[in-house]
Amino acid sequence: MSGQYVHGYHPRESQRLNDQAGTLADLLHSDTAFPPGSRVLEAGCGVGAQTVTLARNSPGARIVSIDISAASLAEANAKVRAARLKNVEFVRADLFAASFEAESFDHVFACFVLEHLARPAEALAALKALLKPGGTITVIEGDHGSTFFHPDSDAARDAIACQVELQRRSGGNAMIGRQVYPLLAAAGFDDVQVSPRMIYVDSSRSHLIDGFTRKTFTAMIEGVRETAINAGIIDAARFDAGIRALHRTAEDDGVFCYTFFKGLGTKS
Amino acid sequence: MSGQYVHGYHPRESQRLNDQAGTLADLLHSDTAFPPGSRVLEAGCGVGAQTVTLARNSPGARIVSIDISAASLAEANAKVRAARLKNVEFVRADLFAASFEAESFDHVFACFVLEHLARPAEALAALKALLKPGGTITVIEGDHGSTFFHPDSDAARDAIACQVELQRRSGGNAMIGRQVYPLLAAAGFDDVQVSPRMIYVDSSRSHLIDGFTRKTFTAMIEGVRETAINAGIIDAARFDAGIRALHRTAEDDGVFCYTFFKGLGTKS
Repeated sequence: MSGQYVHGYHPRESQRLNDQAGTLADLLHSDTAFPPGSRVLEAGCGVGAQTVTLARNSPGARIVSIDISAASLAEANAKVRAARLKNVEFVRADLFAASFEAESFDHVFACFVLEHLARPAEALAALKALLKPGGTITVIEGDHGSTFFHPDSDAARDAIACQVELQRRSGGNAMIGRQVYPLLAAAGFDDVQVSPRMIYVDSSRSHLIDGFTRKTFTAMIEGVRETAINAGIIDAARFDAGIRALHRTAEDDGVFCYTFFKGLGTKS
Repeated sequence: MSGQYVHGYHPRESQRLNDQAGTLADLLHSDTAFPPGSRVLEAGCGVGAQTVTLARNSPGARIVSIDISAASLAEANAKVRAARLKNVEFVRADLFAASFEAESFDHVFACFVLEHLARPAEALAALKALLKPGGTITVIEGDHGSTFFHPDSDAARDAIACQVELQRRSGGNAMIGRQVYPLLAAAGFDDVQVSPRMIYVDSSRSHLIDGFTRKTFTAMIEGVRETAINAGIIDAARFDAGIRALHRTAEDDGVFCYTFFKGLGTKS
């Protein structure tokens, strides 16, 4: 897998991904259920933030979850065992060169994976080769460029831009969500359909203020503070002002918007 | 009504608003239907781009559509007559000082109006005074800051910023959509609920490429070309590069996203 995982592998980051999955699970995954008996590849499962939801929503499917990181796989495995799910097998593998038989999966699922790859088109080609004809691929990605909020703040946008820039330097693309359609189409999938999933937060949706604005999005941006400052992308005062402005959007008169993109394609 | 109407009153602009309503009508209005016998105020009907849809979706309601511009009202009236709708009455009035009886309307509807006002909070207070207790207000606004697209383009964002800046200079706010919730809440409406309505365009949605990306959004930005250049906000080459980049997003691998916000509140 090319491209360093920009979010890092720290416990706090792992918690953030869990908070994200807990808050977003319905929005992102409730319409994904694979049939009993189908063999499903979860490409880039990471610490298993999506794996438990995936396995629970498709209890009869046999899920093979791969990741390049043994530590992440161990954590994902623990999570799946704690949830008493029996339909997931973990395999350490590079999704560009996994040693599975060609055309051996009914479905492929990849959530928050392409954003970390320098060559997302090649990744889709590699995953397509593993799919049986008639099989489907499901891709979910966020897009930091979809973020807007009230009160608006240049400093907040500068802080978000740090994450985007660091991810770019690691070979990834934090604004890849808008490209899910063209990427799937260019990879030769048919019947490509993409649906945007906006998380919209105002004070009538208090569970999202904490669950998304604060503990998912703002926590993610806060997580790159030292790296961004050390890299000379921003100074500490500006970054901290941006974080304060993001927290400000979580107050009673604040609003926060972020959009994920979920794409589905078929291999003919 | 404070604030000059930044889009202007030209025939081409009027066509754009119709294209917009034709394309967006379902997305924005399909869940708005007022009961038979109810008296509904449409505040700021303009050339009637929404009035026909509004009247058609609520055939038993008596709609009073007001605007400050006699020319716009005449055009709106012609449109409603052409559609053979009988349930709309047009009244020339300033929504800040309309001479209707207090608490005489069951519902208020305002679409793409607050964005043009320097004092949107006062407008909501004035409209609230016209509502019967138990009545509702429906507010729909766009937000230019919600715009993103693929391929991304700094020039396109600069061209869009011209529209935002001109609207600001006219006393309006082209990014007011995100504020629908806090504005309604601050005006003292209860049970405020806001739902974002994203127009998402990729090449699988070809009717929207023409109907929204080109003829609604890009046409709107193109419409401020001379004004923006004459005001010294941008030079012609940069603006034209931005417009080309917006048209580029309408090609096969392009994607375009824009979000409207629809809010509903009740007067207790």
